Amino acid sequence: MRKLTLDFAAAKADVLLVTNAFNVRYLTGFTGSNGACLCFADGRPHVLFTDPRYTIQAGQEYPEGKVQIVKKTRLMALAALEFLAKHKSRRIGIDPNDITVASMAVLEKALPNSAAFVHLPNVVETQRMVKDEAELELIRKSCLTNCAAFEATVKKIKPGMREADVAAELEYQQRKRGASAAAFETIVAAGPRTALPHARPTNAKIGENVLLLIDMGAIEDGYTSDMTRMLFVGTSGKGDLPKQVRGWYADVLEAQLAAIDAVREGASAGSVDRAARQVLKAKGHGDLFTHSTGHGLGLEVHESPGLRQKDKTRLQAGMVVTIEPGIYVEGVGGIRIEDTVAVTKGGCEILTPTPRELIQI
Amino acid sequence: MRKLTLDFAAAKADVLLVTNAFNVRYLTGFTGSNGACLCFADGRPHVLFTDPRYTIQAGQEYPEGKVQIVKKTRLMALAALEFLAKHKSRRIGIDPNDITVASMAVLEKALPNSAAFVHLPNVVETQRMVKDEAELELIRKSCLTNCAAFEATVKKIKPGMREADVAAELEYQQRKRGASAAAFETIVAAGPRTALPHARPTNAKIGENVLLLIDMGAIEDGYTSDMTRMLFVGTSGKGDLPKQVRGWYADVLEAQLAAIDAVREGASAGSVDRAARQVLKAKGHGDLFTHSTGHGLGLEVHESPGLRQKDKTRLQAGMVVTIEPGIYVEGVGGIRIEDTVAVTKGGCEILTPTPRELIQI
Repeated sequence: MRKLTLDFAAAKADVLLVTNAFNVRYLTGFTGSNGACLCFADGRPHVLFTDPRYTIQAGQEYPEGKVQIVKKTRLMALAALEFLAKHKSRRIGIDPNDITVASMAVLEKALPNSAAFVHLPNVVETQRMVKDEAELELIRKSCLTNCAAFEATVKKIKPGMREADVAAELEYQQRKRGASAAAFETIVAAGPRTALPHARPTNAKIGENVLLLIDMGAIEDGYTSDMTRMLFVGTSGKGDLPKQVRGWYADVLEAQLAAIDAVREGASAGSVDRAARQVLKAKGHGDLFTHSTGHGLGLEVHESPGLRQKDKTRLQAGMVVTIEPGIYVEGVGGIRIEDTVAVTKGGCEILTPTPRELIQI
Repeated sequence: MRKLTLDFAAAKADVLLVTNAFNVRYLTGFTGSNGACLCFADGRPHVLFTDPRYTIQAGQEYPEGKVQIVKKTRLMALAALEFLAKHKSRRIGIDPNDITVASMAVLEKALPNSAAFVHLPNVVETQRMVKDEAELELIRKSCLTNCAAFEATVKKIKPGMREADVAAELEYQQRKRGASAAAFETIVAAGPRTALPHARPTNAKIGENVLLLIDMGAIEDGYTSDMTRMLFVGTSGKGDLPKQVRGWYADVLEAQLAAIDAVREGASAGSVDRAARQVLKAKGHGDLFTHSTGHGLGLEVHESPGLRQKDKTRLQAGMVVTIEPGIYVEGVGGIRIEDTVAVTKGGCEILTPTPRELIQI
């Protein structure tokens, strides 16, 4: 169980009703697909609600708290409200991002006359931005699994393999090392397809003298990782990288290192983005860097903060973010280099140890 | 593009605003993660809204329709509303299951004075229950990939392998054959863990003379499949199945065949469930069959109808459902046999050709 750090008095709430599955997992450890939990202002243990499919699992995963198995509805928030009707909680905090209009109609009918909903968006998400030591350890493990899977696969890549085969191998190697799944659809893109930031692996064979972009992440014990590396697949060692591409690669790497260098407690999310963007602008690639510099990750592969101009978050030790500048030329190709890093007081800890140099095959 | 079959006059709407990603894909072919589309009562092509990450992809996937790339907001429904403000649509259908309370607050502010929302739940989901020939072909393909991956993996299973290794191999074989991902977390459970209907693969080694349950599905071209088979892993061929387990297996198989036999156009979802349940009840296992008999599948691995007592849906040719009765004894073990079938006029087409007999290794 994790304590919720919400200042209930300031939030004007007696209890927080949590319905987002990642948040329920964060607070109770319960990993089932249908759960809700109540966190009380007075600090007593959270109450977890789930359905009979998870009776055994809920008891195992949340042994220290109260678990209520709900049979009569699949809407756990409704069961939680009925539980609260017997208590004195009047001001019930909810996150309007996590409740549908349809569910809200049901909940409002069940709300006792003496009670009211208080909209408290992103309370748990904000707390989740700063990871505790146990979480950092799981993210480190996920990153190491991911890097090892990448490195084992690289040894097998050769011209003529299909992008989809490389993706299959990467995910197999993740799985073999303890991952429960890929954290997102693994990106394997060769040649001009490297210019698509979200390229799906195809059945196209990887040609000779082409760039290959691999963007991959693992989920291990619920925690994610994220890394992008680039390869140049030559003709049995004789191919060589065009000078222009080598130059681009050096530019993106310089931008990435500048952004990593800007990461430290107290720096703003926007300043890290700016550090990468300034380098690429100075090199004449300003317009080619079409996305933000990175994003937080943890239980989800995309969390707050976003490393982009408009995000005002001040980085804190324990935040985990990706650093992934890239440049993309439609029809020609793209380059991206990405690491996962944990913010520290004076800088950051790089969690993805795979060397950043362009890998030549 | 697929035509929406909604009777707009009866629904009292001029347009349907679709925000669920599976529904957007179904109607337009667009597979990106952030999209919305408008379907008009007058039958003109749907308008698709997405963000600049998907400019190239949206044009490729929905070439026959109008695509609007939205820069100023990530909430595509908001962009769609602003588009509608310039048109005469007054009654805007939405699905309250697909819009959060937070998004609705934003949308309501943007709603023109002359317009109003009409709540139309599950319009596209209802249409999606009955698959067209193109969809059936994709589901057949997904099932064949899934079965082939299972059969290739079975040849490699032996005592001492970890459950997680078997899951890794199954997903690798799916991927190699064209799947983009597993349709759900692959279940591989050995011995007493077969009693957990949603068992996650662990690092436990598969022992000797134990039951092994494998429940797996693939996603191929967006369409899912689902199958469960049971193995008995003996000691180098010398182990034999306890007589009691053999009896249980025969009972579940009889229940599954009875349910398959009950599937035909016009039958109710509940009657298929009843067919399986009656067999297991007669064999004395009534209390051990703790879930419903099956569920629809298509773009999602769980869709309507549910094959359970309370579902009043009449089966129609073109619906695709799983048939998966099971019995579970905590601490001892469980047995489930599952196929994916397509409903036809006079019965059903079984889409998962892997033999149903208990596989002895």
